[in-house]
Amino acid sequence: MIAELICVGTELLMGQVLNTNAQYIAESLAPSGIDMYHQIVVGDNPKRLTEAVRIAFSRADCVIFSGGLGPTDDDLTKETVAAALGKDLVLYGEEWERIVSYFASKGRTVAPNNKKQAMFPSDAIILPNPNGTAPGCIMEANGKAAILLPGPPRELVPMFRDYAMPYLLKRSGHRLYSREVRIFGVGESDVAYRLDDLFKNQTNPTIATYAKTGEVTLRVTAQCFTEAEGEALVSPVLSAIRDELGDCVYDTNGRELAKVCHDALIESKQTLAVAESCTGGRLADAFINYPGSSAYFIEGDVTYSNDAKMRRLGVRRKTLDTVGAVSEECAREMAEGCRKHAGTDFALATTGYAGPDGGEPDKPVGTVFVALACAEGTLVKRLNLFGDRDRIRHSAMLHALDLLRRNICTK
Amino acid sequence: MIAELICVGTELLMGQVLNTNAQYIAESLAPSGIDMYHQIVVGDNPKRLTEAVRIAFSRADCVIFSGGLGPTDDDLTKETVAAALGKDLVLYGEEWERIVSYFASKGRTVAPNNKKQAMFPSDAIILPNPNGTAPGCIMEANGKAAILLPGPPRELVPMFRDYAMPYLLKRSGHRLYSREVRIFGVGESDVAYRLDDLFKNQTNPTIATYAKTGEVTLRVTAQCFTEAEGEALVSPVLSAIRDELGDCVYDTNGRELAKVCHDALIESKQTLAVAESCTGGRLADAFINYPGSSAYFIEGDVTYSNDAKMRRLGVRRKTLDTVGAVSEECAREMAEGCRKHAGTDFALATTGYAGPDGGEPDKPVGTVFVALACAEGTLVKRLNLFGDRDRIRHSAMLHALDLLRRNICTK
Repeated sequence: MIAELICVGTELLMGQVLNTNAQYIAESLAPSGIDMYHQIVVGDNPKRLTEAVRIAFSRADCVIFSGGLGPTDDDLTKETVAAALGKDLVLYGEEWERIVSYFASKGRTVAPNNKKQAMFPSDAIILPNPNGTAPGCIMEANGKAAILLPGPPRELVPMFRDYAMPYLLKRSGHRLYSREVRIFGVGESDVAYRLDDLFKNQTNPTIATYAKTGEVTLRVTAQCFTEAEGEALVSPVLSAIRDELGDCVYDTNGRELAKVCHDALIESKQTLAVAESCTGGRLADAFINYPGSSAYFIEGDVTYSNDAKMRRLGVRRKTLDTVGAVSEECAREMAEGCRKHAGTDFALATTGYAGPDGGEPDKPVGTVFVALACAEGTLVKRLNLFGDRDRIRHSAMLHALDLLRRNICTK
Repeated sequence: MIAELICVGTELLMGQVLNTNAQYIAESLAPSGIDMYHQIVVGDNPKRLTEAVRIAFSRADCVIFSGGLGPTDDDLTKETVAAALGKDLVLYGEEWERIVSYFASKGRTVAPNNKKQAMFPSDAIILPNPNGTAPGCIMEANGKAAILLPGPPRELVPMFRDYAMPYLLKRSGHRLYSREVRIFGVGESDVAYRLDDLFKNQTNPTIATYAKTGEVTLRVTAQCFTEAEGEALVSPVLSAIRDELGDCVYDTNGRELAKVCHDALIESKQTLAVAESCTGGRLADAFINYPGSSAYFIEGDVTYSNDAKMRRLGVRRKTLDTVGAVSEECAREMAEGCRKHAGTDFALATTGYAGPDGGEPDKPVGTVFVALACAEGTLVKRLNLFGDRDRIRHSAMLHALDLLRRNICTK
């Protein structure tokens, strides 16, 4: 089956909005066996949209539209597509009632032009929109289908996931089962190299790689008829990945590194404090962004100045004067001092040169020390990170999380 | 002049890459008077690409391509476009030398298939690529132009900005002058309402709105022949915006809120410490992400637990027992305690309910107090924020920055 995407919106042509919908739909379709050969962006212009619809239906079985379902005169995707398929629009009483209640629930009164949003071809399939007023719809004609979705991602994403994708899979005779493998401590090209045979020989499930700063995610997706069949297809691939990459694989259910630590701390009823120099608050932020972090997160110390390192963490002046703030000793004293005064099971510390200026001959920009203090003792790791300031700080944070993960999750 | 964009890459059709190039090019063209009516994404497939080129040249004066300039057999944009325009490719000796040296400078040897990247039509305009091996090029034919750019944004963006855009402006007879107005404390719809007349009556300069969590940016762009003429056109619009929005306008040169505070602290040689509960490290992170923040940033205390608030900041137990941690009193004691022990000119504090659970009947989720302590006394502001946990924490951070900005930058 061939699908084509038409994103309708002058705001996309003006660059006011980044087209995240196109990526979301593309990455959802990719493993399904449904091919997409074209993505089109066109403005809210009936003539050009009609032409795009004509071209798309000449080469695709199914055309997916995003945008142009709103109440204003500019919103004309539904009208244009219906006309192109030779269909008239009629008022759906039930949908109109729903729109009126939606406005009432927000304490607003509905405007007459909102009636437009309750009009569809009489044989349309309506797609509910719990996050906005404009329902989506599917129009079928001549053995082909047009799927119309609203433009705002917070409305489009759930509607595509919950209604459009199941419709497409049903049409194509498949379902999908996916698992997300998360990896830290080995780069994307190295993952590709070490898993080369696996990548090459795999048709079902497929394996897709996604890299972001310092981390690699693999999505393993099977085409299947039942979830059990999907799990049976995916499971040996997950094992093969684990066999090759060992404990660099930190989760096979798509959790982020900080979430794995968060869950492990809650489960083991242990507490944490952090002492940050170069990461400067970012490590604390990673934990506190999860609801429930108050169960274990006692305190963070952003000791960016040497004065604060001594005063707040008890780092010794001698350490700073001899080996300096960017040193194994300083990282150790930071972690131990932090753990001691916060009275926690674990304390993490970071110190390093994030750049762009600074560094020493034997400790250039990118030199970072991360430390973990716990009852059994203190571990310190020296890192040579690269990239700009933001990237070095972000990588340092991930390495600190990974140090904790490896020493809490394996207990 | 009408331009069309064709992004070439199977990785876009698979959703592995977000198409930021399309937004960048679109927002660059928007104020220039050059119209873009279509953006196309197509894979590395000669037949489909040839058809897309044919359609594009049937309706546009200039077609901009991104991607497919690499050394592999899959990269065929240049070959396909040249063929469509009836041009042959020849080896450019100078470009080949440059590619060889580029590889040498990275300590690598050049592969034979890289020669492909030094081949262009004999009458092409070569666009240098300081950030990679693949030069771009412009091919002119039949009064129309094809502009070919590499796919990676770090190569495309500078090449478009420095070579393609000037070429387009020259062809269209214009240049552009832009200023970015940054606004905090008034929402996007309110900005649109209050500046309605200005928006409506403006043709040169144009005003475009960009909103991200809690902030609004206006880009004011004039079509002009000289920079002085541009400034003369833009300047009265900036004044009109300032007149209407007052001190909610915090910069007219595109600096972020944290950067405005950062610059003001450095310039005034004053120091800062922060005490964070609900923002949990994010406020410290915002400052420390700028190089040079060590000049003023002394310390951050992430006192997420009540115990840490008392132990590290001297918040009184009575305060926590009577009015609680989310209160004006607690915010005040946090800021004053932090300023006192860190010995800084300013201290910022945040405390609030970020959700999703928690809150009290008269202090629901989204209730946040931000405080600023300085020599003159302590200011506390109560906020009612909305959104999910991440959004509430982010907004709280911005409000804390804004409180500092308003009390330092006007001195």
